[in-house]
Amino acid sequence: MGRVTARRRVLRVREGDASYRPDTLAAEEPMEIRVGGRPLTVTMRTPGDDFDLAVGFLVSEGVVHTAGDVAGIRYCAGATADGGNTYNVVDVGLAPHVAAPDASLERNFYTTSSCGLCGKASLDAVRTTAAWSVAQDPLRIGTDTLATLPDKLRAAQRVFDTTGGLHAAGLFGPDGELLGVREDVGRHNAVDKVIGHALREGLLPLRGSVLMVSGRASFELVQKAVMAGIPVLAAVSAPSSLAVDLAAESGLTLIGFLRGASMNVYCGDERIDLLDRRP
Amino acid sequence: MGRVTARRRVLRVREGDASYRPDTLAAEEPMEIRVGGRPLTVTMRTPGDDFDLAVGFLVSEGVVHTAGDVAGIRYCAGATADGGNTYNVVDVGLAPHVAAPDASLERNFYTTSSCGLCGKASLDAVRTTAAWSVAQDPLRIGTDTLATLPDKLRAAQRVFDTTGGLHAAGLFGPDGELLGVREDVGRHNAVDKVIGHALREGLLPLRGSVLMVSGRASFELVQKAVMAGIPVLAAVSAPSSLAVDLAAESGLTLIGFLRGASMNVYCGDERIDLLDRRP
Repeated sequence: MGRVTARRRVLRVREGDASYRPDTLAAEEPMEIRVGGRPLTVTMRTPGDDFDLAVGFLVSEGVVHTAGDVAGIRYCAGATADGGNTYNVVDVGLAPHVAAPDASLERNFYTTSSCGLCGKASLDAVRTTAAWSVAQDPLRIGTDTLATLPDKLRAAQRVFDTTGGLHAAGLFGPDGELLGVREDVGRHNAVDKVIGHALREGLLPLRGSVLMVSGRASFELVQKAVMAGIPVLAAVSAPSSLAVDLAAESGLTLIGFLRGASMNVYCGDERIDLLDRRP
Repeated sequence: MGRVTARRRVLRVREGDASYRPDTLAAEEPMEIRVGGRPLTVTMRTPGDDFDLAVGFLVSEGVVHTAGDVAGIRYCAGATADGGNTYNVVDVGLAPHVAAPDASLERNFYTTSSCGLCGKASLDAVRTTAAWSVAQDPLRIGTDTLATLPDKLRAAQRVFDTTGGLHAAGLFGPDGELLGVREDVGRHNAVDKVIGHALREGLLPLRGSVLMVSGRASFELVQKAVMAGIPVLAAVSAPSSLAVDLAAESGLTLIGFLRGASMNVYCGDERIDLLDRRP
């Protein structure tokens, strides 16, 4: 792509010393997701893996569930006045058996039609849209395996090393093996890219897997894990109250503050094997 | 409000030792913003300062510019089937001279009607919507003053101390004095709350001020600063490429990696007084 990073001149100030030098930044560009030619949403993202991002977003929103639900994906040429292609508009074609999403999809996901808007309604919306349940996933994972994930995720973050400005999402197997990692200026985009790639590989639902994110765990990230059939979500930082509530209601194991052998398990701790790691 | 934090039971694992204990989480709840009774958007936010959040969002989107543009703000009672008030739906009434926002406002902000979606179109959209320019703001600020901001912001983060799960946005005067701080699970919400509060106090445009955020600087955060007339945006972490582009085009001073006396100035460095702090 060549657009994952961008170079800019910066005035670098360090304790009374200042100099101009080039700096590498994480690229950010808008991307419009269309379904069947109809505009659905715009997200600010780091270019790259755009097709994964588009279908991953549709998984999170309950529009598609498996690779067979997607008929095709393409960049829309001719979107500009001069007929050029900005590579910032992606159109997803749905298979004939798949219903097109509601135009007011984003709103609907947080609320139900006639109900007052509240956390409970948000939880209900995810439950009624999920294609499979993570509650029955028999995965068990040891704290020793979990302890290895932060370093593996960090080691796989190539762009972060040069920019310091990207979130990461990594997908791991039951033995802690890294299955895939994506970076993006938006944490939700990094997760959508990982999930979208897995869908296109025919791997959904992602039973027996662990999703790890570089920052905090919000309601939205738990929603994405649940919609992809991922039974364990781990975050480097804190979860929100509604993230814990959705995880508990969905039967997802939610881990926060995962830093080496230290972690907080907010729900679903029946999947955690507590191992005494002292010699 | 009493809903800024929530208590949950957590399994705490520390190097081979595990125990259950109560934990304090940052609260997250959906909030719908209506304008003149018409639903506009839903954001996941930490409850509290909801009226500030609603009008701050409308400042960022170019709908209102001063306190006189807002006729009234209220929670919508009766939004639930049983007539109760969830305090998650806020309706903003506009003054008669203010045009109601386009229903597709969110999309329009990133793109222009017939143009292909790209970073350039996003910059154009902000320029044509801004009510005032920050380019001519005569503010000058020393690196010694900037160096004090991270500690002041951190000291003012009350909820972060108990949850570790909130972003912060702080507004500072030209001498580094803290004018206001807000915390939220969403960084953009924290900024909207600070700006919305300032609008309601009759302080817009916020000439001569500095906005500091706890994380990274995205396009969206630069947009919010520009729309509020704030000439300097400082972030603890990295900016994105489009954030720098918008700041440069708008004449805003953008500082990243502000950590004590170290910082990177990405553009607008004519406002920075370089002070040698060595004895």
